[in-house]
Amino acid sequence: MIEALAPGAADTGPLAVVCGGGSLPFTVADAVMKRGRRAVLFAIEGWADPERIRAYPHHWASLGRFGWFCRTARAEGCRDVVFIGSLIRPPIWQLRPDLKTLRLLPRILRLFHGGDDHLLSGIASIFEEHGFRLIGAHEIAPEILMPEGVLGRQTPSSRDRADIERGLALLNATSPFDIGQGAVVADARVIAIEAAEGTDGMLARVEQLRRAGQLEAASGRGVLIKAAKRHQDRRLDLPSIGPQTVEGAKRAGLAGIAVTAGSTILADPNRIAAVADRENLFVVGVQEQRTAGVRTE
Amino acid sequence: MIEALAPGAADTGPLAVVCGGGSLPFTVADAVMKRGRRAVLFAIEGWADPERIRAYPHHWASLGRFGWFCRTARAEGCRDVVFIGSLIRPPIWQLRPDLKTLRLLPRILRLFHGGDDHLLSGIASIFEEHGFRLIGAHEIAPEILMPEGVLGRQTPSSRDRADIERGLALLNATSPFDIGQGAVVADARVIAIEAAEGTDGMLARVEQLRRAGQLEAASGRGVLIKAAKRHQDRRLDLPSIGPQTVEGAKRAGLAGIAVTAGSTILADPNRIAAVADRENLFVVGVQEQRTAGVRTE
Repeated sequence: MIEALAPGAADTGPLAVVCGGGSLPFTVADAVMKRGRRAVLFAIEGWADPERIRAYPHHWASLGRFGWFCRTARAEGCRDVVFIGSLIRPPIWQLRPDLKTLRLLPRILRLFHGGDDHLLSGIASIFEEHGFRLIGAHEIAPEILMPEGVLGRQTPSSRDRADIERGLALLNATSPFDIGQGAVVADARVIAIEAAEGTDGMLARVEQLRRAGQLEAASGRGVLIKAAKRHQDRRLDLPSIGPQTVEGAKRAGLAGIAVTAGSTILADPNRIAAVADRENLFVVGVQEQRTAGVRTE
Repeated sequence: MIEALAPGAADTGPLAVVCGGGSLPFTVADAVMKRGRRAVLFAIEGWADPERIRAYPHHWASLGRFGWFCRTARAEGCRDVVFIGSLIRPPIWQLRPDLKTLRLLPRILRLFHGGDDHLLSGIASIFEEHGFRLIGAHEIAPEILMPEGVLGRQTPSSRDRADIERGLALLNATSPFDIGQGAVVADARVIAIEAAEGTDGMLARVEQLRRAGQLEAASGRGVLIKAAKRHQDRRLDLPSIGPQTVEGAKRAGLAGIAVTAGSTILADPNRIAAVADRENLFVVGVQEQRTAGVRTE
């Protein structure tokens, strides 16, 4: 067993980056290393990108092996842990628990009965009880957060701004229900609300509805709106967008994307802006408050 | 031109039943005729069932021909009009307007910019300004409404009741946004919220998520909850369920269906109960108030 690290070591010691899918884990790892801190990636099997992970110090991890994680992270000298990347809640019977996980299983089972916030904050507690410190990716690398104003050249029209306001108000109303915080609004009409299917799944649905002639809004109308839940643990579950979100919004025939500034993670901002410009979509960071206006500079 | 009918004739004269898709229009027409009142069906092209419509006095109608409708309904002696059956909002450019509709088009265009309630109440005003009286199907045939308690043999468990309460609270929160009033909740987690895709579309999505292993709730868990919007014009847009809703809920792996009693239309209650019993699903009518408990007797 590795001894507990001295408290002072926490801020500068190696960082354990637990990696789900997509490119965000690598954006975060790069940002950490750019600051001169070592990052050790724990790639979740079935989710983390096996090609890209090779360029980093890494271990392959599976969800049921918490005991193994504790040993390995301690051996690497990691006390700080960051969770990043996409990961859809697995059916609990797919976990193959190691001994420590098995002992925690009754507690984990209870956590699984509820929304994402409930599950995530419970998991955060378990990590902290085992001597780890959970850190939000945005605390480590604030440059990954969406700023206020637009990325790229396009800006929302006044009609788009009305759709954005309606979407923010809706997400404000659904926030206490601990569901995916995304919606599509077109010409003041709510077209889709995100829950377990995720943002990409919701955009694919809007694309299908449009193809089937079931939307009256013309192509090039409508906005994807994403907002952080009001009381969520931001260390674990901030909304994020990437270039594929812009492509999905384009296929869905939307005018653009609005996300809450300062609480939305950008996977690859340069490519987001490039794809948005190529497809003539706007991507705008807006204030979180329901009553606030949309600033576009 | 046919002269306006005498006011006293309204309650007993023939009823114009404007028919969308599904079996509900025929349930309503049968209920009207059982009371000894004549029903004239106006079958909307592309929506009304061409096989079943033959058994009734009917005209084929298309959405853009309001002038034709006024003339034909008056010639049939109809002053009361009921709208019933499924009809997804058409893209406005698919309307081929007749002369009267053309004159109303600027107003209709404005109505199309907004939610369903906005569109429907505007259309109701247009009919009333032309001397028709819009009546809710539930006013004409109250027996088509879901009562409190269960249809069929199955009853919700205490876990199901907790899911129902959560769904009702969520629909209460989204009610001001004028969207489809349906949701799926399983093990206290909101799995899906309905907007433009409709209830059948939402159930198909839950089925797909389950097949893809993206739901952690076991098969046989979870409830479809439907509720009338709080301030909607109930003459035009009450939620409804039919046997296909029960089949969709079964395919989605749910335990049952809960709808608000007294404000949900049942298409073919006997078949709903028969399918529910065959598939071991519950179908329960619950009180509308968010704080009210679920009664199953």
